[in-house]
Amino acid sequence: MSDDLNGPGYIHTFRVGLHDTDAAGVLFFAQLFRHAHEAYEAFMAHIGFPLPEMIRQGEYHLPLVSAQADYLAKISHGDDIQVTVQVAQMSTRSFSMAYTFTAGRRKTVAHAKTVHVLIAHPDKRIAAPLVLPQALRIALARYQQPPPATD
Amino acid sequence: MSDDLNGPGYIHTFRVGLHDTDAAGVLFFAQLFRHAHEAYEAFMAHIGFPLPEMIRQGEYHLPLVSAQADYLAKISHGDDIQVTVQVAQMSTRSFSMAYTFTAGRRKTVAHAKTVHVLIAHPDKRIAAPLVLPQALRIALARYQQPPPATD
Amino acid sequence: MSDDLNGPGYIHTFRVGLHDTDAAGVLFFAQLFRHAHEAYEAFMAHIGFPLPEMIRQGEYHLPLVSAQADYLAKISHGDDIQVTVQVAQMSTRSFSMAYTFTAGRRKTVAHAKTVHVLIAHPDKRIAAPLVLPQALRIALARYQQPPPATD
Amino acid sequence: MSDDLNGPGYIHTFRVGLHDTDAAGVLFFAQLFRHAHEAYEAFMAHIGFPLPEMIRQGEYHLPLVSAQADYLAKISHGDDIQVTVQVAQMSTRSFSMAYTFTAGRRKTVAHAKTVHVLIAHPDKRIAAPLVLPQALRIALARYQQPPPATD
Repeated sequence: MSDDLNGPGYIHTFRVGLHDTDAAGVLFFAQLFRHAHEAYEAFMAHIGFPLPEMIRQGEYHLPLVSAQADYLAKISHGDDIQVTVQVAQMSTRSFSMAYTFTAGRRKTVAHAKTVHVLIAHPDKRIAAPLVLPQALRIALARYQQPPPATD
Repeated sequence: MSDDLNGPGYIHTFRVGLHDTDAAGVLFFAQLFRHAHEAYEAFMAHIGFPLPEMIRQGEYHLPLVSAQADYLAKISHGDDIQVTVQVAQMSTRSFSMAYTFTAGRRKTVAHAKTVHVLIAHPDKRIAAPLVLPQALRIALARYQQPPPATD
Repeated sequence: MSDDLNGPGYIHTFRVGLHDTDAAGVLFFAQLFRHAHEAYEAFMAHIGFPLPEMIRQGEYHLPLVSAQADYLAKISHGDDIQVTVQVAQMSTRSFSMAYTFTAGRRKTVAHAKTVHVLIAHPDKRIAAPLVLPQALRIALARYQQPPPATD
Repeated sequence: MSDDLNGPGYIHTFRVGLHDTDAAGVLFFAQLFRHAHEAYEAFMAHIGFPLPEMIRQGEYHLPLVSAQADYLAKISHGDDIQVTVQVAQMSTRSFSMAYTFTAGRRKTVAHAKTVHVLIAHPDKRIAAPLVLPQALRIALARYQQPPPATD
């Protein structure tokens, strides 16, 4: 089993729609990032930090500063995909999310990763140092991947 | 109650994602059509005519020849939307689908309509006249809106 | 010649990208609306009313309340498309835009239409009646389709 | 100057459209990948290997197997972006493309990278070893970044 599936994960599912595909007959690569973000939004709502409210309230911002994906197998129109969402890393001001996309009988078809960094909202004056709220850190930690085994 | 909700409908739901919205803070209008098509794909799979197989087998094509939408109320990030899918009209070679988008306590926020016409696949020689398969017509008819009352 | 090409028009061009297409091998219908809106944005900037500033300043909003499209011919990956943008109708509070999509030697492949209505910005108190600014009406009128001939 | 702008590059430009942005007011991250791919398509057509024909002829496939991006600064609605396209690496069967996104007076706002690997078309029997065609290698080499200086 792939080690990015160690530890607990939040499960999000979707079916590949016609609009996800391109004339080459498979998922257009950038659509994987859209689905990763949908999984991230579902995850954040699940742990009690829904993005719509965070953006509207604007107390702090968690912009995505980096994204990457690896495509391991063809993803086709109609495929039922399961996304396992995990927290890959966490520091005082940032965290990264890992997404494992599987199809059928747990065949991994893609991996993705996004990095989010806390920044002060431009309209707010925040005297305190910029650190991820304690409640968010605790919620994220529950889905954190174990550190890689050293052997 | 709006008369496009007369008769039976197939229900599809989605939550408005960040990628659906634009800098004006609401759903970008073209994304409504993507969601209408997702609802259409779910509907067609539900009645036994999944699009992925129809496209792959290529025996007949049902391209979309017309689309329209009316936007009645603001659709925002995080809104839970219910789409009621119905067959608006049906003829020997074409049919149109009606989509009613509701939010919250059955408030209608948008309407959409798509028209699909049967065409022969360019690679196939079809001697028979182009008519919608009987099985598809029967399946569609179960979700057809009643004709408007004359009073 | 099609009568929606009567009168002056603003020309916008684009090439159909891989991401515009779907597994059926042609432009995914909702992408036509994205391209219509890109043509609309280019047109509005051209006549001196760039959307980015209008949205940021927020003095008045022109949300899209209706959209429709007719697909007349296959639009494929790599096709060079010309969009002719015209003002179809104008009233004191709203206007509609007509888009004619042509490929190759002026073959019309699609039509689209969007309707925009002036609304007050929720954060502003506007005592004056809601009417399109005079300067905008004059700028739009230069691209207005002539009324259909009566014969 | 950033060293990914060493060497020759192909220039592609675009203006950030409303549909590119999200309710947070900036470019939705996955749209950067769409623009990277548009730049890649324009580049491939420029060097004589247009993707639409490559996909239609299907003699060989160059699927994207990896993608990544770093977001360095806010990209907003209406921004005029210049993409400098370069070949980052090349081997017998694969190559990677580097994209540098700049706004205004050459301020770098994002980087992206895509990796493309040659695979045999499933429908073709290719006895010969899978290597990038010589003509493509020569064309790509003209836009290759110089190896990093060792000092």
